[in-house]
Amino acid sequence: MDEFMKAAIEEAQKGLNEGGIPIGSVIVHNGKIIGRGHNRRVQKGSVILHGEMDAFENAGRQPASVYRESVLYTTLSPCPMCSGAILLYGIPKVIIGENKTFMGDEEHLKSHGVELEVLQDETCINMMNKFINENPTLWNEDIGV
Amino acid sequence: MDEFMKAAIEEAQKGLNEGGIPIGSVIVHNGKIIGRGHNRRVQKGSVILHGEMDAFENAGRQPASVYRESVLYTTLSPCPMCSGAILLYGIPKVIIGENKTFMGDEEHLKSHGVELEVLQDETCINMMNKFINENPTLWNEDIGV
Repeated sequence: MDEFMKAAIEEAQKGLNEGGIPIGSVIVHNGKIIGRGHNRRVQKGSVILHGEMDAFENAGRQPASVYRESVLYTTLSPCPMCSGAILLYGIPKVIIGENKTFMGDEEHLKSHGVELEVLQDETCINMMNKFINENPTLWNEDIGV
Repeated sequence: MDEFMKAAIEEAQKGLNEGGIPIGSVIVHNGKIIGRGHNRRVQKGSVILHGEMDAFENAGRQPASVYRESVLYTTLSPCPMCSGAILLYGIPKVIIGENKTFMGDEEHLKSHGVELEVLQDETCINMMNKFINENPTLWNEDIGV
């Protein structure tokens, strides 16, 4: 597997080990990870730190030119909020671990010209299926349901 | 003026006094403010704490039923990221101070049935015009340009 999706999965597993929701993300610029993160709803009582948002935050304040040349990796299809952050900063390409357990706002991203690649990775799918089955209420809270 | 837009403007001015970008927001449920915030890019080195995001974060973890009955007030038209957060949590109504200095993703919100009210408030317009004229680089960074 691609080393960057592997890093995103490691982030997801870190989140799980902390008692959190297992979704991870990394932002890659010129072949180097500039930001990595995972969902911190449980850990920080945060409603905005989804995995992708945490990766953006940890990448820090970057010039627009850096975002425009970056690729975002995420273990799960990006929700409307994370899709909006991707559009705000003009990330041109998103690699998605899977969209079988949750379909984010992929149509909105595509309609704005963002290139998407969906891997349907078994590790990502199994991790989320298990989590959702065991924590349906927490999962629904995370996606506003 | 509506007391809640007044509170959002107070948040924006608080941000300005801290050396930050003057955009504020409050979330109102059943006639009561449950979260208030302002842009914290400068203050916290944050790329995700726009005013609306800060208000969501400060409102804390709420059940979906609360978001669905809430109104979000913001001094400025919500960018794609903040619009995405509004959609994720199913906020049904957004009151916008102005959209003359920046037009956010209002079309996307409307297409998902969110009710928008744009006040074109002079205080909001003047505050942003002055800030953008004096800090064009910082402002562009905040909107990913």
